Amino acid sequence: MNTWPTRAAALPDRVSIREVGPRDGLQSENPIPPEDKVRLIDALSGTGLRRIEAVSFVHPKAIPQMADADEVWRAVTRSPEVQYSALAPNLKGAQRALDAGFDHVEVVVSASDTHNLNNIKRSTDESLDGIAELIAALGDRGPTIEVIVATAFGCPYEGDVAAERVASIVDRVITDGAHRIAFGDTTGMATPRRVAELLDLVRSAHPDVPLLLHFHNTRGTALANVLTAMDYGVVEFDASVGGLGGCPYAPGASGNLATEELVHMLHDMGVETGVDLDALIEVAELAESLVGRELPSGVLRAGPRTRLTPKPDIKD
Amino acid sequence: MNTWPTRAAALPDRVSIREVGPRDGLQSENPIPPEDKVRLIDALSGTGLRRIEAVSFVHPKAIPQMADADEVWRAVTRSPEVQYSALAPNLKGAQRALDAGFDHVEVVVSASDTHNLNNIKRSTDESLDGIAELIAALGDRGPTIEVIVATAFGCPYEGDVAAERVASIVDRVITDGAHRIAFGDTTGMATPRRVAELLDLVRSAHPDVPLLLHFHNTRGTALANVLTAMDYGVVEFDASVGGLGGCPYAPGASGNLATEELVHMLHDMGVETGVDLDALIEVAELAESLVGRELPSGVLRAGPRTRLTPKPDIKD
Repeated sequence: MNTWPTRAAALPDRVSIREVGPRDGLQSENPIPPEDKVRLIDALSGTGLRRIEAVSFVHPKAIPQMADADEVWRAVTRSPEVQYSALAPNLKGAQRALDAGFDHVEVVVSASDTHNLNNIKRSTDESLDGIAELIAALGDRGPTIEVIVATAFGCPYEGDVAAERVASIVDRVITDGAHRIAFGDTTGMATPRRVAELLDLVRSAHPDVPLLLHFHNTRGTALANVLTAMDYGVVEFDASVGGLGGCPYAPGASGNLATEELVHMLHDMGVETGVDLDALIEVAELAESLVGRELPSGVLRAGPRTRLTPKPDIKD
Repeated sequence: MNTWPTRAAALPDRVSIREVGPRDGLQSENPIPPEDKVRLIDALSGTGLRRIEAVSFVHPKAIPQMADADEVWRAVTRSPEVQYSALAPNLKGAQRALDAGFDHVEVVVSASDTHNLNNIKRSTDESLDGIAELIAALGDRGPTIEVIVATAFGCPYEGDVAAERVASIVDRVITDGAHRIAFGDTTGMATPRRVAELLDLVRSAHPDVPLLLHFHNTRGTALANVLTAMDYGVVEFDASVGGLGGCPYAPGASGNLATEELVHMLHDMGVETGVDLDALIEVAELAESLVGRELPSGVLRAGPRTRLTPKPDIKD
C-alpha cells in the first residue's frame, strides 16, 4: 500500500466548508419561491455541512431574489449543529439580520474602486467607513462580523488588484474590529500565483485572523487555488452546491466552485470535511431541479471517482 | 510590487504542451470532414504550440472518426517548428505511421485489465507483449516510441488502480525499449493525491525518463493535478483545444483539460509555454464551430483574466 507522500504532511486534517448556494448561488439564478429555498437549506443541513450562508438582507430593489429573506429564515428548520450566516449590505441590513436571530453577519467591500462604485455607488474607502460604523454600532449586540473583500484577486474592470491594496483593507477592518476576513474571487481571476501572493502578505501581518477563501471556477483554477491556499494554512472555503450562481454585478462571471467538487477532491486527499458526499450530490440534483438549468458541477454529472461503471460483458 | 513567493522557486520556467485536440479530441466528437481536421491542425501550429498529436492509425471499423488519417496528414502544412505525433494501436498501425513520415509514435496500454479487455480485447500483459514486439520490430527505423498508460489514476470499471501496478508497467516498457512514458487519466479520476503517489514511485525508479501527463477535467481537478505534477518535476502535459473530446471507451468521461485553461494558468504563474493565448482562443472558437457543440472550456467562454470589461458609466 502506498501512503500519500511528501505533500500530505503539509495538508490540514480537516477543512471547514461554508455552503453559499442558498444565498450567493440563488442570488444570480432565476428567482425561485421561498418554500424551495427552505427546502434547499434544510436539505443542505442534512448532509453534514456545518456552515450555511442562508440569506441576505439587502434591499428588494437591489436584489429581488432575496426579498423573501425573513420569510425564508423563519421557515428554515434550524439544525443546532449548523452555523447559519446572513449577508448584510449596510447597518440597516445587519440590524435586520440580528433581529432575525443571526449571530454571524457578513458585510462586503470590493478591493477595486470601480467594482465597488458600480456595485453600490460608493468608493472602497467610503464602504470601509461604513463598515467601521456598522461594527461600532452593532458591537454591543455581540455578533461575529466577517468582512468579505470582493475582487481580491482581480477586478473585471480594472484588471489586477495589488495584493498590497487588499492587505491594507484587511489591516483597516481588523483595526476597526472585524472578527473574520474572507477573500472573494468575484469573477474567477485567481490563480495559484495570485493566491500565494496575497496569502503571503496577509498571513505575515495577521497570522491568526480567521480567513476564508471564496473561489469561482470561471477559468478552471478553483481547485488549484484551494490546493495553494491549503499550503498557506487556509482551512476555510466557500462553495456552492452544484456550482449554483455567479455574481450579478460581475459581467462574465460564471459558477461558484461546486461544493461536491471541493468535498470530492479533499476526501480523496484524506482531508476531512464532515460532509456525506453522496447526500450532497443528491442535494445538487435537487438544486438543479429547483433552478431548472443544468449546473456546471463535474461531480454532479459524472459522480465521484468511486462510482464505478458496471463491468462490461467481455467476449473473446 | 510583489514577487510570486515561496512556491515559485519550485516551479519550472517552461512547460511543454502537446495539443491532442485533432486526435484524442476529435476521436470522441461527431465526425468532421478531413479538410476541417487539416484546418484545425494548421491553425494550431500557428499558435506557438510545438507538439501536436495529429492523427491515429487505427482500423476504421474501430474508430471511424480516424479513417482518413493518411488523407489528413498528407494535406497538413507541416511546420518545421512543430513535432507531430501519431497514435498507433498495434504494429501495423505503427508501420503505417512511419510510412507516412511520423517519427514520434504513441502506443497505448491500460493499466486496468478490465479496461484493456473492453478496449481491445486483450489483457494488460498481452498488450505489453505486443508493445515489446512492436518496439523490437520498429527499432531499426528509429522512431521515438511513447507508451501511454491509460487508466493510470483509476479505472471506471475496477476503481482504484494501484500505483505499484502502474509503476511495474513502466519498469517493463522501459526495459523493453520505450523512449517515453505518458500517464492517461482516462476518465478524470486523478486527484493531487493520486498524482503524488504515482509520481513518487515512478520518479524514484526512473528519474530521467521523459514523462508526460494527460488529465481530464471530469471532476474539476485537472489544474490541481497539473500543479501537483509540477511539484514532482513534470514539465510535459497533454491538453486539448477548447476541451475537445473525452474517451469513447470510457463511460462517463467528459472533456480533456482545455489547452487554453492550461496555458492561461501557467502564464499567470510565470511558467512559459511559447503559446500565444489569444491566438489559441481563436482556434478554440474554430474548433467549437467545426464540431458544432459548445465546448467546456472556461477560458474560451470568459476569456483570459486579462480581458477586461469596459468600465461602466457610473453616476452618483
